[in-house]
Amino acid sequence: MSHTTTEHLIQALNWRYATKHFDAAKKIPADVWAALEKTLVLTPTSYGLQPYKFFVVENPAKRTELFAHSWHQKQVVEASHFVVFTARTEMKEADVDKFIQRAVEVRKLPVDALNRYREVIVRDVVHGGRGTHGWTTQQTYIALGNLMTAAALIGVDASPLEGIVPAEYDKILNLKNSGYATVVACALGYRSADDKYAGMAKIRYETNELVHYI
Amino acid sequence: MSHTTTEHLIQALNWRYATKHFDAAKKIPADVWAALEKTLVLTPTSYGLQPYKFFVVENPAKRTELFAHSWHQKQVVEASHFVVFTARTEMKEADVDKFIQRAVEVRKLPVDALNRYREVIVRDVVHGGRGTHGWTTQQTYIALGNLMTAAALIGVDASPLEGIVPAEYDKILNLKNSGYATVVACALGYRSADDKYAGMAKIRYETNELVHYI
Repeated sequence: MSHTTTEHLIQALNWRYATKHFDAAKKIPADVWAALEKTLVLTPTSYGLQPYKFFVVENPAKRTELFAHSWHQKQVVEASHFVVFTARTEMKEADVDKFIQRAVEVRKLPVDALNRYREVIVRDVVHGGRGTHGWTTQQTYIALGNLMTAAALIGVDASPLEGIVPAEYDKILNLKNSGYATVVACALGYRSADDKYAGMAKIRYETNELVHYI
Repeated sequence: MSHTTTEHLIQALNWRYATKHFDAAKKIPADVWAALEKTLVLTPTSYGLQPYKFFVVENPAKRTELFAHSWHQKQVVEASHFVVFTARTEMKEADVDKFIQRAVEVRKLPVDALNRYREVIVRDVVHGGRGTHGWTTQQTYIALGNLMTAAALIGVDASPLEGIVPAEYDKILNLKNSGYATVVACALGYRSADDKYAGMAKIRYETNELVHYI
């Protein structure tokens, strides 16, 4: 298999920035969006549990409602695509059962082949105190990182949005009693030619400040 | 700028898997590692605060020490590179000051140009209750997602490791009183030809189970 060159990877990561002003007229083509949707689905998670759901808000009225709880960030209404990341509020045995059932199905295994593995996950995640909303949120942030990097590589602009009111998003998305709650959002599309942030130098600490060799 | 094709992106994401058995003899070349190091540094974070440090453990004795607290996962000692992700234990005004100082320096701004922005961040992150270790951990998971996706695209194998004992890692890495604490790790290198996990079907839920359109 061929690979992306390291030069291209770094170019793409330097090209991306938290887009503030999207060109509302430029939509992500269907085949490109299909790849980004697939990117979300392929996100790696702990044990592969995928404790999240992604809501792609297409309805303009819903977008306007969400905008009211998004710290005036216009990306919510201007971007081609707007994804709300929600995470499982708590992991239960049923979540593990669902996953094990899927694993057995995908890998064509005997129905009880993963019983011991199921017990390991249940003990660790359900009864071991890990399967909190905090932990499912962390898994969801892997998806966010994966999506932003993938978007940059294929030339799609993105803006992550933590500045949202999750409780209001939950109401608008009808998440009450769904077992999922909003954690973060990401707007995707194409930068407007007049977004002054595009040309600003990226603020990162020096490498030797962030990366230590032992 | 040229971009990665969507086909290549999806191929790379399907090619990757949580590598269980690395070829201990195959090292990541220096130029490739330099790109992955740069990838970590370029990770996007909330406000750009970068509330983390990455420890690349090269010393074999240290790797062996860490292995003892890693649920018997041999990747810790077999992989070419082993990165421990640590997150700020708590965000303080000094963290915001450090960031603002860096921003002023990188963007060549007057020293007080970002005073108002500083106040916004301090109010939200330091006094608004967001700047906890839980939140810095989330930011760190963006880096993890970014790194795993970038590695896949340039043909480097990776294995994220949550199955570690953070408190023991903290001791081995001398993090006590450093203001940073271990959250997760990632082994990188090249899969061994006999890693049976490489050929297994990837377990993901159906797209319509994970992605909803509104």
